[in-house]
Amino acid sequence: MRPSGRAPNELRAVKLTPEFTCHAEGSVLIEFGNTKVICNASLDSGVPPFLKGSGQGWITAEYGMLPRSTNKRMRREATQNKQGGRTVEIQRLIGRSLRAAVDLKQLGEVTIVIDCDVIQADGGTRTAAITGGYVALMQAINNARARKIIKTVPATSAIASISVGICNGEPVLDLDYDEDSTAETDMNVIMNDAGHFIEIQGTAEGHPFSDSELARMLELARHGIGELFSKQREVIGPG
Amino acid sequence: MRPSGRAPNELRAVKLTPEFTCHAEGSVLIEFGNTKVICNASLDSGVPPFLKGSGQGWITAEYGMLPRSTNKRMRREATQNKQGGRTVEIQRLIGRSLRAAVDLKQLGEVTIVIDCDVIQADGGTRTAAITGGYVALMQAINNARARKIIKTVPATSAIASISVGICNGEPVLDLDYDEDSTAETDMNVIMNDAGHFIEIQGTAEGHPFSDSELARMLELARHGIGELFSKQREVIGPG
Amino acid sequence: MRPSGRAPNELRAVKLTPEFTCHAEGSVLIEFGNTKVICNASLDSGVPPFLKGSGQGWITAEYGMLPRSTNKRMRREATQNKQGGRTVEIQRLIGRSLRAAVDLKQLGEVTIVIDCDVIQADGGTRTAAITGGYVALMQAINNARARKIIKTVPATSAIASISVGICNGEPVLDLDYDEDSTAETDMNVIMNDAGHFIEIQGTAEGHPFSDSELARMLELARHGIGELFSKQREVIGPG
Amino acid sequence: MRPSGRAPNELRAVKLTPEFTCHAEGSVLIEFGNTKVICNASLDSGVPPFLKGSGQGWITAEYGMLPRSTNKRMRREATQNKQGGRTVEIQRLIGRSLRAAVDLKQLGEVTIVIDCDVIQADGGTRTAAITGGYVALMQAINNARARKIIKTVPATSAIASISVGICNGEPVLDLDYDEDSTAETDMNVIMNDAGHFIEIQGTAEGHPFSDSELARMLELARHGIGELFSKQREVIGPG
Amino acid sequence: MRPSGRAPNELRAVKLTPEFTCHAEGSVLIEFGNTKVICNASLDSGVPPFLKGSGQGWITAEYGMLPRSTNKRMRREATQNKQGGRTVEIQRLIGRSLRAAVDLKQLGEVTIVIDCDVIQADGGTRTAAITGGYVALMQAINNARARKIIKTVPATSAIASISVGICNGEPVLDLDYDEDSTAETDMNVIMNDAGHFIEIQGTAEGHPFSDSELARMLELARHGIGELFSKQREVIGPG
Amino acid sequence: MRPSGRAPNELRAVKLTPEFTCHAEGSVLIEFGNTKVICNASLDSGVPPFLKGSGQGWITAEYGMLPRSTNKRMRREATQNKQGGRTVEIQRLIGRSLRAAVDLKQLGEVTIVIDCDVIQADGGTRTAAITGGYVALMQAINNARARKIIKTVPATSAIASISVGICNGEPVLDLDYDEDSTAETDMNVIMNDAGHFIEIQGTAEGHPFSDSELARMLELARHGIGELFSKQREVIGPG
Repeated sequence: MRPSGRAPNELRAVKLTPEFTCHAEGSVLIEFGNTKVICNASLDSGVPPFLKGSGQGWITAEYGMLPRSTNKRMRREATQNKQGGRTVEIQRLIGRSLRAAVDLKQLGEVTIVIDCDVIQADGGTRTAAITGGYVALMQAINNARARKIIKTVPATSAIASISVGICNGEPVLDLDYDEDSTAETDMNVIMNDAGHFIEIQGTAEGHPFSDSELARMLELARHGIGELFSKQREVIGPG
Repeated sequence: MRPSGRAPNELRAVKLTPEFTCHAEGSVLIEFGNTKVICNASLDSGVPPFLKGSGQGWITAEYGMLPRSTNKRMRREATQNKQGGRTVEIQRLIGRSLRAAVDLKQLGEVTIVIDCDVIQADGGTRTAAITGGYVALMQAINNARARKIIKTVPATSAIASISVGICNGEPVLDLDYDEDSTAETDMNVIMNDAGHFIEIQGTAEGHPFSDSELARMLELARHGIGELFSKQREVIGPG
Repeated sequence: MRPSGRAPNELRAVKLTPEFTCHAEGSVLIEFGNTKVICNASLDSGVPPFLKGSGQGWITAEYGMLPRSTNKRMRREATQNKQGGRTVEIQRLIGRSLRAAVDLKQLGEVTIVIDCDVIQADGGTRTAAITGGYVALMQAINNARARKIIKTVPATSAIASISVGICNGEPVLDLDYDEDSTAETDMNVIMNDAGHFIEIQGTAEGHPFSDSELARMLELARHGIGELFSKQREVIGPG
Repeated sequence: MRPSGRAPNELRAVKLTPEFTCHAEGSVLIEFGNTKVICNASLDSGVPPFLKGSGQGWITAEYGMLPRSTNKRMRREATQNKQGGRTVEIQRLIGRSLRAAVDLKQLGEVTIVIDCDVIQADGGTRTAAITGGYVALMQAINNARARKIIKTVPATSAIASISVGICNGEPVLDLDYDEDSTAETDMNVIMNDAGHFIEIQGTAEGHPFSDSELARMLELARHGIGELFSKQREVIGPG
Repeated sequence: MRPSGRAPNELRAVKLTPEFTCHAEGSVLIEFGNTKVICNASLDSGVPPFLKGSGQGWITAEYGMLPRSTNKRMRREATQNKQGGRTVEIQRLIGRSLRAAVDLKQLGEVTIVIDCDVIQADGGTRTAAITGGYVALMQAINNARARKIIKTVPATSAIASISVGICNGEPVLDLDYDEDSTAETDMNVIMNDAGHFIEIQGTAEGHPFSDSELARMLELARHGIGELFSKQREVIGPG
Repeated sequence: MRPSGRAPNELRAVKLTPEFTCHAEGSVLIEFGNTKVICNASLDSGVPPFLKGSGQGWITAEYGMLPRSTNKRMRREATQNKQGGRTVEIQRLIGRSLRAAVDLKQLGEVTIVIDCDVIQADGGTRTAAITGGYVALMQAINNARARKIIKTVPATSAIASISVGICNGEPVLDLDYDEDSTAETDMNVIMNDAGHFIEIQGTAEGHPFSDSELARMLELARHGIGELFSKQREVIGPG
């Protein structure tokens, strides 16, 4: 029995609120139960130095948590003179995943930055950030196309992400904080809508996992990500 | 005529949403028109080293803006290895103002941190942060009293803040970004509910101001702050 | 009775020593009693990136205190990897105030940096820095005109600054450290020689202040600043 | 055909040189072909604050590259005032993996730091660091037992790591730099000697991977890691 | 012929102004011609962690230059988030040299920090700082003895320092900036009043120096340092 | 009697292993007994901004120690957000010394960076770094000439360095850590193969040294450096 009473293959209530803020080219609030992440996409002409003149665009991400998004207040990273290791790891993952959504060559020399800011945390913030970040990214691309900043329609594939894990010996989908903090294994899965893997990060926390446990977790992830693609389409439209 | 069509002494729509996040001891979303600031109060036992053993409590504030809270994306302070000068100035002002709300000696050795995070900016974020921060502070004190962490009822006075300025030669109340960026003079006023000043910061932007202009601006501020005290009381209760 | 025996509207002995150092384009040592600040103005061709090509000049300020300018040694900011919040606040204030002295458009694309370094502190260092900084600034402009770096005569107005406050219930002018550290209210006033305000920063330290107290403090400030304009003119000449 | 001429399931020449430096409690140079990493284990009494009094030990890792370990000189991290995101990610991975090797409760309140410094890089430095780091860790534990610093024999399981990937459409084992920089998918696998997974990190670089490609890569990893366990045992002894 | 017209073995005018600032336990302004350095000694009870409980005292130094102490404005180190390499080198040298003046064991557990701040630079700032720093140090020790903070009279030997060099092929004493910036060899010599060396740092700038040149430079240094000891005694008294 | 049993004028076993790493244009492992330093020279087109367009080249050095190169683990500088003062001092010394080896004007606009990384420390790491760094530098220059990046043959003179000191009252050559940590005087001497001094840095550690002691130390240094030139020539060839 899960603490939340959910079935092993049951997602939390997922909600996407588009246009959550008014200045960004793409903006969505994504909620997985009590986990709430603002995803804002900013479109900028120009690319980083290593791409100048390549004709290719760039997508990158930044991640942050409000100090009191968590049960116990965390120190604000801006006052510590650096981003922590966990933050850096997460924002690199979000950026890599979202770059897999778009043919950067077709994008042309523009940069899209996805800011993922957690205003309330209850487990699964990075997978929520990727899933919501994809929506903000598509909104920004549509915005750029409407304003003729992007002339072609770059080929894209939908990207979504969910966590799976083993809790009390049982593979489960979409861990909340209660489960995440006691899970024996924790795995984040990012897939595209062709059903292929973009990234898998599985970590044993005390209980090394077997081939069959891995297979069961990946099956759960595939199921959950399918539902997320539906949620994304409701907001973005048929594309 | 103001860009927003408001009368010179007219506030924007002000809205306070309590319990905006679920973990903090005090939490409110404050909106002044399009300006939206999350104010979270965190209660912690213990005080900074300079107050250890004094029997006195401490209240401090931190301020941040989401990178895309503004029309043009700002760099994230956590990635720049420091808080900017404007941020430091603002959070020092918020902290000083809110310390004036409570008798710190009666508070006992606890620390309350008020995090003010701007999720959308349209002028007046610091005065919104002080006005909303006072609400979050009172919620945290009530929480602490309910949990017997604070035994006495510390004497408090309500604190609110508003901006005034001179735009197109005319003194006006509660400047939005359009006005703020072109104002000849910009002044932030913080008052208590006894009608006295906690802090005044007036800056001429190109047009040094006279005694009579100062008097007119302070009169507008007093009027606007009176309305804010009503809004605060609706959320906090009669105290 | 004030600790120094001064009348409520009496300045400390004010002394300006021009050409205090030999390399800077403008240099003055300003003393308010035991408070001593070196103000050096450096003239540089070119402007910051945000003004390139605008034809407009720039004036900025930096502030520092020698570690043992104070009664108790402070840590050196250079060894702490950052300037403290108070330092940042003060140097932003000095810069804003001195930019109000000169028509930057007429200055042309040059930058003048005013370094204000406190070698001995006894209260009122920021107002001394502004008052002395104005002198160094005028010297640098005269130097630039003599060397034909500035071709026009930019319109300027004299700027001076003084602190006022309420000590033991009494409004007083030009607080020294003894008064400053126990004042109920502390206010820094910057005015131009047309008698208008450039900036007002008043902070209640435990005793919120009334309209009439504010009026009395501003009257004292106006009186003191008048004397400072005379002292400045003795050094700069009739202009 | 692989650039090195190796078969798809063929490791590079792996060499472990114990006691490579003389001061550390555990020290080994590990070579995978041209990749060379010094792994030094340092034993220290005491644990980080969050474990004080818990009776439990701690294992952590740091990772660095000599500036000219790579084909093009990299900037030295010590001169950049921070470790880069890649470095932080890698050293967190090494630390997590090696903590899975030892029952920290049985270790008692000691800390072992594993420094992994790359003196020459040709792909696979993080997996070499984990595989060599395990050897240095065991040497340090044996040293501590010989010196009676650790009284019990903490339960351990061997840990080793290898990279696999898809190059030119073909799953291959132990990618060198030539392969790594052009691979369609890159995966790092860490396993214990019971044949279970400690961590899996697979990233599609342009070519999302299927379930069957994943299965084939994991099979190659299992094969390679088996050989690494033999190499480790030759140096550590039967344990 | 030297640019200043001095004889090869002639010092610049050396002037020591005691009690230059009013808060420090020791304070002197030292001038070598146009080089002017404020040396403030701060006495503090307690010692750094590595000396706690040792019964031994500590002497350390910090060095800084006002941004416009030089002909061209330098960036302020506090705004660059670090002290430069030259600064660190110099303050380590000053600290080492002054520790050689006092028997730290007899000093007892107190710390004396010597702040050397250059307000005007014309070559030789580090040797001026050492020579003036010794005076400030002795004043602080006398102050501490008068206040019974130091009970014994710690054994001391006078320390002074001068630069020598080879300019236009000629060994000369006490280089000013004109000479320093073109010298073939530059050497800083620190000696005690027993005629022995505390530190020698000689650097060839383009012209490696011979044994006989070294001997001649050391002879000049010995001569100059003898004069400095007289100047120090005039200020400190016979000791 | 020295702790190592060596005669006062006896070097430790010195060994130079060329091509120690495979990517750098110059690479050597230098060993002085247990002291082991990797010296890698990296050749780069272009020069720092202050030399752009001058036609002159640049040589600089960086120095680091592996955390466990020492008996007790040191904190990694990259995790401390800065290089320590000792590191900065040493790398500036190495850079200055090696610039004296080459006529930078004849080098043309290329930069050579010498990375000196200590993998095992037992005293004398900076003198080993200079002596080995010279070899790596010459290899890089030969590499650049072979590849026609440098067209002329820049005039060079060999540079080597050794430490001398006074231990137990006796001048000795090439101090190891046991001697270094208890020496009364410690001196680093850098010479060229014309027998002239490039740099002398002598520091009294508790025992100020006399003229005759200085003379004896310099004589020992000259003897030791002569042997080092032979070792260098064996690796570099006749030049």
